[in-house]
Amino acid sequence: MGLLVLGTVALDDVKTPSGVKKAMLGGSAAHFTMSARLFDDVHLVGVVGKDFPKVHLNFLKSKGANLASLTIAEGQTFRWTGEYKKDDLNSAITHATKLGVLANYVPELTESQKKMTHVFLANLAPDAQGRLLSLIKSPELVGLDTMNLWINTAMKDLRRLIKRADIFVLNDGESKLLTGEQNIVKAAQAIRAMGPKVVVIKKGEHGVYVLGAKFEFGFPAYPVDRVVDPTGAGDTFAGGMFGYLSKVRKMDEKSFRRAVLYGTVLASFNVQGFGMGRTAPLSMREVEVRLKEFQKFAGLIS
Amino acid sequence: MGLLVLGTVALDDVKTPSGVKKAMLGGSAAHFTMSARLFDDVHLVGVVGKDFPKVHLNFLKSKGANLASLTIAEGQTFRWTGEYKKDDLNSAITHATKLGVLANYVPELTESQKKMTHVFLANLAPDAQGRLLSLIKSPELVGLDTMNLWINTAMKDLRRLIKRADIFVLNDGESKLLTGEQNIVKAAQAIRAMGPKVVVIKKGEHGVYVLGAKFEFGFPAYPVDRVVDPTGAGDTFAGGMFGYLSKVRKMDEKSFRRAVLYGTVLASFNVQGFGMGRTAPLSMREVEVRLKEFQKFAGLIS
Repeated sequence: MGLLVLGTVALDDVKTPSGVKKAMLGGSAAHFTMSARLFDDVHLVGVVGKDFPKVHLNFLKSKGANLASLTIAEGQTFRWTGEYKKDDLNSAITHATKLGVLANYVPELTESQKKMTHVFLANLAPDAQGRLLSLIKSPELVGLDTMNLWINTAMKDLRRLIKRADIFVLNDGESKLLTGEQNIVKAAQAIRAMGPKVVVIKKGEHGVYVLGAKFEFGFPAYPVDRVVDPTGAGDTFAGGMFGYLSKVRKMDEKSFRRAVLYGTVLASFNVQGFGMGRTAPLSMREVEVRLKEFQKFAGLIS
Repeated sequence: MGLLVLGTVALDDVKTPSGVKKAMLGGSAAHFTMSARLFDDVHLVGVVGKDFPKVHLNFLKSKGANLASLTIAEGQTFRWTGEYKKDDLNSAITHATKLGVLANYVPELTESQKKMTHVFLANLAPDAQGRLLSLIKSPELVGLDTMNLWINTAMKDLRRLIKRADIFVLNDGESKLLTGEQNIVKAAQAIRAMGPKVVVIKKGEHGVYVLGAKFEFGFPAYPVDRVVDPTGAGDTFAGGMFGYLSKVRKMDEKSFRRAVLYGTVLASFNVQGFGMGRTAPLSMREVEVRLKEFQKFAGLIS
């Protein structure tokens, strides 16, 4: 059946206490893909520049990504340069953002992709997210992610999108910024009232809080004693969660809990390596092993 | 069988976004008692001044607390004046601390109390905590709590105590300050190496992380959508946890998980009212109802 993900495909320059890496494959859609591919066919929708290394294109294809709607445009690939300091590995310090080809990007889909029903709008300008959604003939499950920047600068577009989302995934800081509520339970209630069926609040090392119409649940994070690079953890989480939901085509509590478990486990791998160093080589078997470990840790009913 | 708890008994002046309260009964040992009394007989060890209202003494007695070693000394009761702001209900801002009779307090026990085996050293100067521990003839289960102040000013005494503790309970900020580690899994490992069998790191609204020799686990917090007053939440947590362990006289993983569940649930009641407004009237039945709700929320094996 497959799923569509729209978002950034980037070259990341990252510095963390574990080291420095230049021009790594990154971006919200790329990290999402590396995780969701374990569950369903992923059609990656985005844009890169002519400078985008062929080796990255081949790598994405080798991981099963359908790149029919990955536009290769004149100009430079989106580039993010950021740093994480030892005393707060949860917060990225952005040194530079070069939009490049992202600046004028308008997403397109093939005719067959327009008939797909499961779409995740990973972090990108709400305007572009909205345009993509308009191309989909009969959306059945729409996931949405965003960031502080769009809450601060594109609230009107974002509010319209939130109304159309089935699942809205955001982090705790974003949920507070969006609602003005300091309590995340209250924030999630306020966001639910904006339209989404389910609100998923990611809390990084503190786990996740989920509020739906008929369920409410929370998990701690998998305990990681050495975070190498948290870049893309949220996208990796969303990829595991949404990938699983797309595979099973169900939205009941049991399925949703399982989906969030996969997201949790995949995010834990993500932070243990630079870029996709740990998620790219992952097999479902390794994921299941850690899922069992996590269930034991959290005392969960399997 | 019963347990001993040493700590502060205070009069608290507290301001939170929900209101202002003056001279409430508070303090680490008092909050601990209000929670632990649901599981075992609690012998409260501490000091108050001649100004301490009789109504509070009668209240503590009515809740089953043994006050044989609650000294009533010449002078003023320990008084804490603090505030929580809307944007960070996790962090208390201390406006004033008047030690009063605490300044010269040396804990004492009755002969029969010296034969007790289960003792919790709630937040107090490490020197006083050490003196109390020395009075116990055959300690079997020693719990310890502390605060930033003692990590900064009494590290030598504290390190000696940590070595003698079976269970060391502290919050995430304290665990980082004590070890210099920013990652709480690493911090817990470092603290375990200082001696305690089990390290319990409280993360407030983010739940709890527990590391023992043979087990490691974590729970989210019970979702509370309106925090009225978080004062004493950590002590209430410790009282539930240690009270249960004292009652069952076991330290295996299953018992410890259950103990931490009780702590989690009791702390959630604590923050929903000023002072002991919610914990004082609690029956075990109400606790069990919320425990079941929490198990459902967190997807736990019951």
